[in-house]
Amino acid sequence: MKVVLDAMGGDYAPSVTVEGAVETVNEVEDIEIILVGSEDLIWKELRNKSYPAERISIVHASQTVSMDEKVSLALRRKKDSSIRRGIELVREGKADAFVSAGHSGVVMATALLRLGKLTGVSRPAIAATMPTMKGRFILIDAGANVDSEPLNLFQFALMGSAYSSRIYGVSNPKIALLSIGEEDTKGNDLTRETFKLLSKSDLNFVGNIEGKDIFKGEVDVVVCDGFIGNIALKISEGLAETVMKMLKKEIVDIITGRLAYLLMKPAIKNFKKKTDYAEYGGAPLLGINGTCIISHGRSSAKAIRNALKLANRFAQQKFSEVIAYELQRYAEEMKSVLHETAVQEVH
Amino acid sequence: MKVVLDAMGGDYAPSVTVEGAVETVNEVEDIEIILVGSEDLIWKELRNKSYPAERISIVHASQTVSMDEKVSLALRRKKDSSIRRGIELVREGKADAFVSAGHSGVVMATALLRLGKLTGVSRPAIAATMPTMKGRFILIDAGANVDSEPLNLFQFALMGSAYSSRIYGVSNPKIALLSIGEEDTKGNDLTRETFKLLSKSDLNFVGNIEGKDIFKGEVDVVVCDGFIGNIALKISEGLAETVMKMLKKEIVDIITGRLAYLLMKPAIKNFKKKTDYAEYGGAPLLGINGTCIISHGRSSAKAIRNALKLANRFAQQKFSEVIAYELQRYAEEMKSVLHETAVQEVH
Repeated sequence: MKVVLDAMGGDYAPSVTVEGAVETVNEVEDIEIILVGSEDLIWKELRNKSYPAERISIVHASQTVSMDEKVSLALRRKKDSSIRRGIELVREGKADAFVSAGHSGVVMATALLRLGKLTGVSRPAIAATMPTMKGRFILIDAGANVDSEPLNLFQFALMGSAYSSRIYGVSNPKIALLSIGEEDTKGNDLTRETFKLLSKSDLNFVGNIEGKDIFKGEVDVVVCDGFIGNIALKISEGLAETVMKMLKKEIVDIITGRLAYLLMKPAIKNFKKKTDYAEYGGAPLLGINGTCIISHGRSSAKAIRNALKLANRFAQQKFSEVIAYELQRYAEEMKSVLHETAVQEVH
Repeated sequence: MKVVLDAMGGDYAPSVTVEGAVETVNEVEDIEIILVGSEDLIWKELRNKSYPAERISIVHASQTVSMDEKVSLALRRKKDSSIRRGIELVREGKADAFVSAGHSGVVMATALLRLGKLTGVSRPAIAATMPTMKGRFILIDAGANVDSEPLNLFQFALMGSAYSSRIYGVSNPKIALLSIGEEDTKGNDLTRETFKLLSKSDLNFVGNIEGKDIFKGEVDVVVCDGFIGNIALKISEGLAETVMKMLKKEIVDIITGRLAYLLMKPAIKNFKKKTDYAEYGGAPLLGINGTCIISHGRSSAKAIRNALKLANRFAQQKFSEVIAYELQRYAEEMKSVLHETAVQEVH
């Protein structure tokens, strides 16, 4: 597959992005990478590296979107940004997938504008993968939308389920709805309505899940509105960091602490590896007409490598087609469910 | 002050509740405690304990609400529950505050029904205290409401600010709005409208805060809808536990791990103490006509002791009157702000 990488995206671009691309082609056989961005800067990074040259190419883009730019301004003024150019390559069929660790808002908006939504998708969503005690789960939507409707959440569940089964190989993934109590009556207007829709579908819906239980690893997909999902994601990120910092401080503060810290260092390393976002590479924007992976702004070369591999898998699986098929399969069923729910409410 | 304790509330009641009450009167001079619940069971717990007898009394209640009861059923069928009897004592002026580690939904509903809201309060809110790198912050609303309106959130900010300054002694508390980006345009409909209201108030509003930043300790009060707040609270609880468990597992898995774990044990103890919910005792339900503290179901005697002390402080400060005064002070100002905001939207 041909994967486009926004070489200019992320806090450490272009050095780590180019490094990640080189590592990927050296490791993975069936991938070609197109680096988009400043030709000069990319060449400078590539120059002394060893890699199969026929599998990395460059497409020049004269502009770079910085991390704090306003989305509307970037869309208007940066028509030749690495993000825009990269997504155009997918649009024109010259590449199969796009990866960026750059401005996620601009990536989302550009993907939506230029690639468009899949037929039947009401709103695309970001599917973030998070580590648990036992493995991982997919949080969808992790921030593409706010003020979602029940039908949006139903589609997020559908897309998350397809992601879990097709990409992670989970059979019959368990889907849960993030809420504030396990009973179907608990939650807010949005979750109560979504609960009804999910209960009537043939998805493996296991009910509401509370915040305290998401990391236990009992479910594969956690569905929520993007406002909630983004807060959940960021709190998890911030808290995990805070816990580690506070704990380290407590450890070095006690007499036996420095020795203990020295002895436990390999364990901290293992823990960090297991919980490192870089392991998952990035979060796909699902529901658009093409593959688009959004990586963390602080992405390391390893994160870029994993994002490129993830993009490759999505493209190989023709994942957009899978979603389109699933949506169509549900289109008739959903009509009747939505109708039924509306009828119940009138009575 | 006279504080009523629901002796039957919580996973380890009545033994830890009675133990907590005894510890409190032995430690604090100016508190009287009324234990409400099964007289027999309470006496059994009190019998062999040493404490100033004139400062602990018992009021019998023939019923107990269990943790998994439906709120509507409990309200209807358990008119002589320890929760109901305890709150009635506050209502009748026979006590100054109520503390329960029992069914939080039933406590909230009973307090709302029997004590009522303070004049001007649109919705009461739960104010939970959470530890940070530097100290603590108040999260309001932590779960009393879902689907809040901007005016509700504005009042939560007002009540949280009063809590922070009057009870924790923070001068000019920094108030932030939990959202998904720092700019005023980021967030959902609710936060964008609330942002306008808070900006126009004389509260020390510092803007939006993202989930990843709440534990840094830069703000004193974090305002959000109760659905979000409850999820934030529970995720934090679940994740902190998960991180500790995973880390412990990694530590004992390495060769030098058992020794390291032994050496770091005092540090883990210190860390747990600093982040223990028991340190904060409980979360007040603010905006009702009286003092009502909701404690964790898993409350230890120490948590009960801290909840009783917190209730005592709230009662001493006549906190309800503080809120009532603040609301009145804002009543006029809010009218004009709300009017202005509405006018802007029309234009």
